[in-house]
Amino acid sequence: MPASDDAFIHPLFLGPAAENHEILEKLVVEFLRDHVYWRRNFHPEDGQRIPTTAVNQPEFQDFLARTKKELYKLSADLKSAVPFFHPRYIGHMTADLLLPGVVARILTTLYNPNNVSDEAAAVTVDRELRVGTQLARMFGYATESKNEPCAWGHLTSGGTVANYEALWNFNSVKFYGIALQAAAHGFDVEFENMGPLDKRLSEYTKWELVNLSLDQTIALRRQISERLRVHGDAEDHFRFAKAVRGERIETRGNAAFFLEHSELKPPVVLVPASAHYSWEKGMKVLGLGRANLIRVEVDGHMRLDPIDLRTKLDAAFSNRVPVLAVVGVLGTTEFGNIDPIHEIVAVRKDCRERGWDFGLHIDAAWGGYLMSMFRETDGSFRDRDEMRSEHRYFPSDEVHAAFSAVREADSITVDPHKLGYVPYAAGAFIARNREIVDFLTQKAAYVFDLGDAQKETPMDTKLRGLGQYILEGSKSGAAAASVYVTHKVMPLDQTGFGQLMKKTIGTCEFFWDEARERAERWKDRVTLTVPFEPDTNLVCLAINPAGNTSLAAMNRFGRAIFASMKVDANRPVQVKTFIGSYTSLTKDNVGGPQADRILDDLGIDRATFRTLPKDPEREADHIFLLRHTLMNPWLQSKVEDRNYVEMYWDFLDELIDGALEDV
Amino acid sequence: MPASDDAFIHPLFLGPAAENHEILEKLVVEFLRDHVYWRRNFHPEDGQRIPTTAVNQPEFQDFLARTKKELYKLSADLKSAVPFFHPRYIGHMTADLLLPGVVARILTTLYNPNNVSDEAAAVTVDRELRVGTQLARMFGYATESKNEPCAWGHLTSGGTVANYEALWNFNSVKFYGIALQAAAHGFDVEFENMGPLDKRLSEYTKWELVNLSLDQTIALRRQISERLRVHGDAEDHFRFAKAVRGERIETRGNAAFFLEHSELKPPVVLVPASAHYSWEKGMKVLGLGRANLIRVEVDGHMRLDPIDLRTKLDAAFSNRVPVLAVVGVLGTTEFGNIDPIHEIVAVRKDCRERGWDFGLHIDAAWGGYLMSMFRETDGSFRDRDEMRSEHRYFPSDEVHAAFSAVREADSITVDPHKLGYVPYAAGAFIARNREIVDFLTQKAAYVFDLGDAQKETPMDTKLRGLGQYILEGSKSGAAAASVYVTHKVMPLDQTGFGQLMKKTIGTCEFFWDEARERAERWKDRVTLTVPFEPDTNLVCLAINPAGNTSLAAMNRFGRAIFASMKVDANRPVQVKTFIGSYTSLTKDNVGGPQADRILDDLGIDRATFRTLPKDPEREADHIFLLRHTLMNPWLQSKVEDRNYVEMYWDFLDELIDGALEDV
Repeated sequence: MPASDDAFIHPLFLGPAAENHEILEKLVVEFLRDHVYWRRNFHPEDGQRIPTTAVNQPEFQDFLARTKKELYKLSADLKSAVPFFHPRYIGHMTADLLLPGVVARILTTLYNPNNVSDEAAAVTVDRELRVGTQLARMFGYATESKNEPCAWGHLTSGGTVANYEALWNFNSVKFYGIALQAAAHGFDVEFENMGPLDKRLSEYTKWELVNLSLDQTIALRRQISERLRVHGDAEDHFRFAKAVRGERIETRGNAAFFLEHSELKPPVVLVPASAHYSWEKGMKVLGLGRANLIRVEVDGHMRLDPIDLRTKLDAAFSNRVPVLAVVGVLGTTEFGNIDPIHEIVAVRKDCRERGWDFGLHIDAAWGGYLMSMFRETDGSFRDRDEMRSEHRYFPSDEVHAAFSAVREADSITVDPHKLGYVPYAAGAFIARNREIVDFLTQKAAYVFDLGDAQKETPMDTKLRGLGQYILEGSKSGAAAASVYVTHKVMPLDQTGFGQLMKKTIGTCEFFWDEARERAERWKDRVTLTVPFEPDTNLVCLAINPAGNTSLAAMNRFGRAIFASMKVDANRPVQVKTFIGSYTSLTKDNVGGPQADRILDDLGIDRATFRTLPKDPEREADHIFLLRHTLMNPWLQSKVEDRNYVEMYWDFLDELIDGALEDV
Repeated sequence: MPASDDAFIHPLFLGPAAENHEILEKLVVEFLRDHVYWRRNFHPEDGQRIPTTAVNQPEFQDFLARTKKELYKLSADLKSAVPFFHPRYIGHMTADLLLPGVVARILTTLYNPNNVSDEAAAVTVDRELRVGTQLARMFGYATESKNEPCAWGHLTSGGTVANYEALWNFNSVKFYGIALQAAAHGFDVEFENMGPLDKRLSEYTKWELVNLSLDQTIALRRQISERLRVHGDAEDHFRFAKAVRGERIETRGNAAFFLEHSELKPPVVLVPASAHYSWEKGMKVLGLGRANLIRVEVDGHMRLDPIDLRTKLDAAFSNRVPVLAVVGVLGTTEFGNIDPIHEIVAVRKDCRERGWDFGLHIDAAWGGYLMSMFRETDGSFRDRDEMRSEHRYFPSDEVHAAFSAVREADSITVDPHKLGYVPYAAGAFIARNREIVDFLTQKAAYVFDLGDAQKETPMDTKLRGLGQYILEGSKSGAAAASVYVTHKVMPLDQTGFGQLMKKTIGTCEFFWDEARERAERWKDRVTLTVPFEPDTNLVCLAINPAGNTSLAAMNRFGRAIFASMKVDANRPVQVKTFIGSYTSLTKDNVGGPQADRILDDLGIDRATFRTLPKDPEREADHIFLLRHTLMNPWLQSKVEDRNYVEMYWDFLDELIDGALEDV
């Protein structure tokens, strides 16, 4: 790759050797002073609270000395921190930080806004809502207030919380129709010609109500509100709203709700077998039950298998089990693979024709920012052939089709602190239809004391009371400022973030080519495989000493290699040549045929892969893999004549030699 | 208060006029450079990735220009930020930031550790666990590994998430006995002489099992594990563990679990009527149901009424309803009041004698740090009389007794980003018995591939995989560093944080005295009341124009006054004399007798306080109050001859005049 291609990266980061240190320091100092003098402008007539002589007092000096002592200790200990910023780090999903984001984060920290509501964050709640819009637009959602539906989004402490939020949002809407119907019973107002089936509300079956789409339930709620406005008075409206609240699953609790509506079964959620463990945690935490998380098999690309999805959905719906959500993963944690979102959308279309509905959520914690490559500046979706001309393999037909269908999803998780290259903690939850927030708030919709009893607060104003509509409460406004500024400087399209994403994909293609070349070259010593062809910018490797057939032995061999690449706070980081990560395939996340294929390719006896190993010397309950996150933009940069990817493979070569001696 | 008393505050903060700006700037620059040169020490042989000439390239300059433009815009907009740092801000629960914490936060941000596990945060996961220990020790928990139980704690994004975590933790343990019993059915191993009743596991009733204490269930789990170790082989153990997992409420989901165990009712949670709205949100999100959140009445001090608690517990237990938790609030959000924790502990003791148990959680998001005043350096609990000698009113007998009983609770929420004066987002969850984490993890307890199948990982090592045991996933290591350094410099006892807390209490006492004095002086113009005597450092005021009997009119009057103290991003902050906050009492959080008392004191017609106002001119569904958080350490500092509290009262005087003219 010609050097000029790298030029765009030069100003983005502090850099592996802190090359841009002057820029960072200047900006930090400038904005720190800017803050300082802002303080001076607030009631300057008050003078100083801290006398100018205070610094000379022994207790002042003592406090300062203790502060310095602790900060020196921290700074010294941080010398053992993981050098994420460097191309020699190819482990977890983190790298250097984009300068605009890191400066924005630091400068806003001094103001310490709390984005729970705009009363505590006059400026940054606005930024957070704009970040929601920026991301929503990248995903292809409509974001103008006049649009229906109009998207919204906000930051979370991370993808895990955003995933919980998806389940919470869906749950709030899914069973709302049931509550409406139960509440309407006993009210004088006639609810005729309601909803998509254009019939009396009381005539809907419960099964029909839980199979309305999110938009349909939102519309039904509005329709009923409108009917009450016309036919009832404010008190009716209030009483009705209260009755509905009383019937909701969130009021009753899951247990009482399903005891009451015994003809309904508790819902299930379908995720690919490759899904992140936060989905299991979410099912447990939200009281939905881990057993109701159904794992859809993955194919040879570690992508959700649409045929198995259909089978499992059919089974659920035929048994009258409500399906709360199907989750598609855009960039799996272990392999970066892309589920066929377009196929899930097609399956949903077919389901809807049969009167079956489910929420579609995309867990794009990792891969969300890759969307920027697919987006033109004008918002249009890029043509596959044009994109292909910039890469060796990317995007495959399936990957291109998957990204084109993202806009059909109901909500999306994306982590700015991953491929957005901003400081922790910054996850995000984006929803296609912002009216969903009316299902989440604790507050009553009407405030009677303000004189205008019938006037609802406009959505844009409402959302500023952010804490009402999200899982968390107090939250950092500095995170919002950091992400917002980053997106402004690096737009979420192919001219901005897309360029950086392209770089990571290019590195992965290079790495993968190298893997196949090395596999061939090393085949007498080891069998080296890439169990799943990379879709994006992560690659995992399995390495088996030639002739070995035992999984446990292969795992020991892999661990011996990995030992040199492991983070170890007790030794100077400087001793590390490269730092990597590992992962394991288990029977849970890789089904029979895929496991067989992978083991066969490695020459491992299938029988040594067991749920419960009896002979720990030969058998194992997992397949150990080396995992490589290729997001550092300098990985193809050359030191003398070798780039970092090549250096890594040379290093691996040595490690294999070392490990073979000990076999 | 003599000036010398203030001297200890001088070095703590940047200061209202940024008096300590040189210190902050020097430290930030020093540690920024320290980071920069650390980068230079990692593989210096690699040279530079960014050529020294890069900065001269047009695209470099263009990026830099755009970065600056956006940062200038942000910094300019932040000039409308809320000036939390200043004693003229007495609104929400935030003030200036402690310098050690803000510097630690900024410096660690450059390293960007991710505390999800020590693989991504070699240094700061350790700091986070130590913060847990620091806070646990302040609360009086045992924290040495050799202790049983031994406490642990970790940071969350805020108190809201910590509160969810309490419910999740309790739920995991409460119904574990049921799962054990169900799984044991069909295993050969005899489970005799089990648990506190020393009988066969199968002979426990379900009601007995859900009424084991947290420690008892933990002990039962161990006992069974031990029995299997002695009588079964590894495979038995594995099969049994799997069977237990299959029976757990977290696996089945709340609905299926209670359908299966139909003789059990879904559990309830008891909170004081004053509790934060995150408890409602938590009940909804966790699938427990808002209707199962039982509000215990509060007394004339806005404290949980132990008699009503007893009544409501009796009712629940007599109806065989499991009680998941009772929550005591240590510092309510609106009034800073302290629930009688000692009384709750006494009630629990009585309940236990009747075979009834519940988890006791303390929501000390606000008041947790006040505990530092009660703690001697050697860890002992301070005598009330000694403390009283330092204050006018604090601590009352009840408050002192409440703090002395905190150590009896099972878990505690506390927010370092509130009275810990560190940047957002930093909440914390502290648990008395760390063995609870074994009930939370997704992972199996045994890993067979590592050769030592029967050896459990030591707890201290396990906890480093933090993401396994908490609600969140990726999280900021910088937050942990910030809180840790702050606690090191300002120990969590009366010599450290206690001094700062004492200052806030002193300010509140001064404010309250002033309130009564003004009430008397202004009585011809307005009726001014303090509806609840302050326990700590928050005060609310109600103000009614003399002669008015309508609640709606009083609320309008209060809002007119508040309009001048409101945050408004569209006007320069400089126009604000003081910035406050407000709150409302509703029928939900203030019961009949208390509401009557408050309205009577104000001369308001009780009948104008209604759930659903029919005449919005006279009636209202809430009582509007001005709310004052008195945490700024400079509030008693004098400008010329008036301190900020006095200036505030003078300002209020003017505002009342203005509002009276418009009545």
